[in-house]
Amino acid sequence: MDIKVSIIGSGNVATHLSKALKNSGATLLHIWSQNFKNAQALAATVSATAVNTISQITDDGSDLVIIAVKDDAITEVASALVNRKGLVAHTSGAASLTDLSQLQNYGVFYPLQTFSKYKELNFSEVPICLEANNDANLQLLKNVATALSKKVYEVATDQRKILHLAAVFACNFPNYLYGVAQQLLAQHQLSFDIVRPLIAETAHKVQTALPTEVQTGPAVRNDEQTMAKHEKLLQENPDWVNIYQLLSEQIKKSK
Amino acid sequence: MDIKVSIIGSGNVATHLSKALKNSGATLLHIWSQNFKNAQALAATVSATAVNTISQITDDGSDLVIIAVKDDAITEVASALVNRKGLVAHTSGAASLTDLSQLQNYGVFYPLQTFSKYKELNFSEVPICLEANNDANLQLLKNVATALSKKVYEVATDQRKILHLAAVFACNFPNYLYGVAQQLLAQHQLSFDIVRPLIAETAHKVQTALPTEVQTGPAVRNDEQTMAKHEKLLQENPDWVNIYQLLSEQIKKSK
Repeated sequence: MDIKVSIIGSGNVATHLSKALKNSGATLLHIWSQNFKNAQALAATVSATAVNTISQITDDGSDLVIIAVKDDAITEVASALVNRKGLVAHTSGAASLTDLSQLQNYGVFYPLQTFSKYKELNFSEVPICLEANNDANLQLLKNVATALSKKVYEVATDQRKILHLAAVFACNFPNYLYGVAQQLLAQHQLSFDIVRPLIAETAHKVQTALPTEVQTGPAVRNDEQTMAKHEKLLQENPDWVNIYQLLSEQIKKSK
Repeated sequence: MDIKVSIIGSGNVATHLSKALKNSGATLLHIWSQNFKNAQALAATVSATAVNTISQITDDGSDLVIIAVKDDAITEVASALVNRKGLVAHTSGAASLTDLSQLQNYGVFYPLQTFSKYKELNFSEVPICLEANNDANLQLLKNVATALSKKVYEVATDQRKILHLAAVFACNFPNYLYGVAQQLLAQHQLSFDIVRPLIAETAHKVQTALPTEVQTGPAVRNDEQTMAKHEKLLQENPDWVNIYQLLSEQIKKSK
């Protein structure tokens, strides 16, 4: 892919995206981060140059500037780029397209995945959701996205916010519950390894089925006796009892 | 594996276990189910014979009888086998070993996995938790389990009950939350396909990491603004708001 990109940010999204861009042939020009050392570290891995101020990126010759910072910093970063003529896109699921409307050419490049700094990821399977202020900018983002991933979607701000919310239910909350399972097992000298295959299979099932079709467990069977026993086993942790009761009630209602 | 097994039950566990036993060379002798037609259907797939009464299994020459029925039916099924001398094992995570103590030789053969009738499963990755009333019976169960799976654990009743509870948090609850994500997307004309890779990656991450190490999302970042926006988007479904608030609070507390 013959394109020049600069990156603002050095967190998980900035890191994975920079590497994926580099791998698909893009030239990484500049990296800025609030923490200059982090910018330098990321720049070193993708043959880019770390810069001290965002304004150094304004007219640096890049075709695309990607803002991968925390949501509440997007507007501030954008205001440092107001003199830029070229395209600028943020990577947030929750921020609006119009959060960049002070710019001339802007868009959204939202990779819907959970990124961990130290875990490699096959970017070709990462859904990328795009939006832009005009067709030409959308086309540029599409060219970049399809070079990285097989799964490219055009998603307007309102729908993207729903996706971002759905991701909390599909990823953040399940991961928290995995953590409860792990702690419960640890408290009883049991290895988390025993339930790891179950976690994998549960996620694997819904790659083809709908979750409601494959719901299992005491709540969906309305097995009150087992649920009562479970609540008793949890009684030393009232928070976990609350979670158990609320989610079991919901599963029963959803039948 | 040169062993003769009879099965009581025809549900998901009975079905997957019968097929796995057959595939590893065991001879399936008899199948009994409350619904005779179901027993016949399963018997046909594993070259066994469906029987009308449990007592026909008592002295049928099988080395092992596996009871794979609902927890509250185990004792009743066992009482129909009181005259049996050979080993009988149930497959429940929540029932005690001593639920079979009216028998002479008994044990537990608990495959910790989520089974769907129409989905094939690689049984060699299914953790099997064993318990028995004496060493000889435990050894017989171990021989059978290691022929089916690479992951065989010896787990006493109290610990097995914890495992069963942990499985609710690791499987049943996450699957319910996948369903909330799917319904939320459907309500906004978005395909569940967009979050399927996220679900897969979330489960994949914890195959090596601990869940607490890879927690992401607005709650762990203490991003109150995003959480408030999410709750507003959910407001038409107060149940989902409750879930969102409770789990977010727990994630914040667990930091």
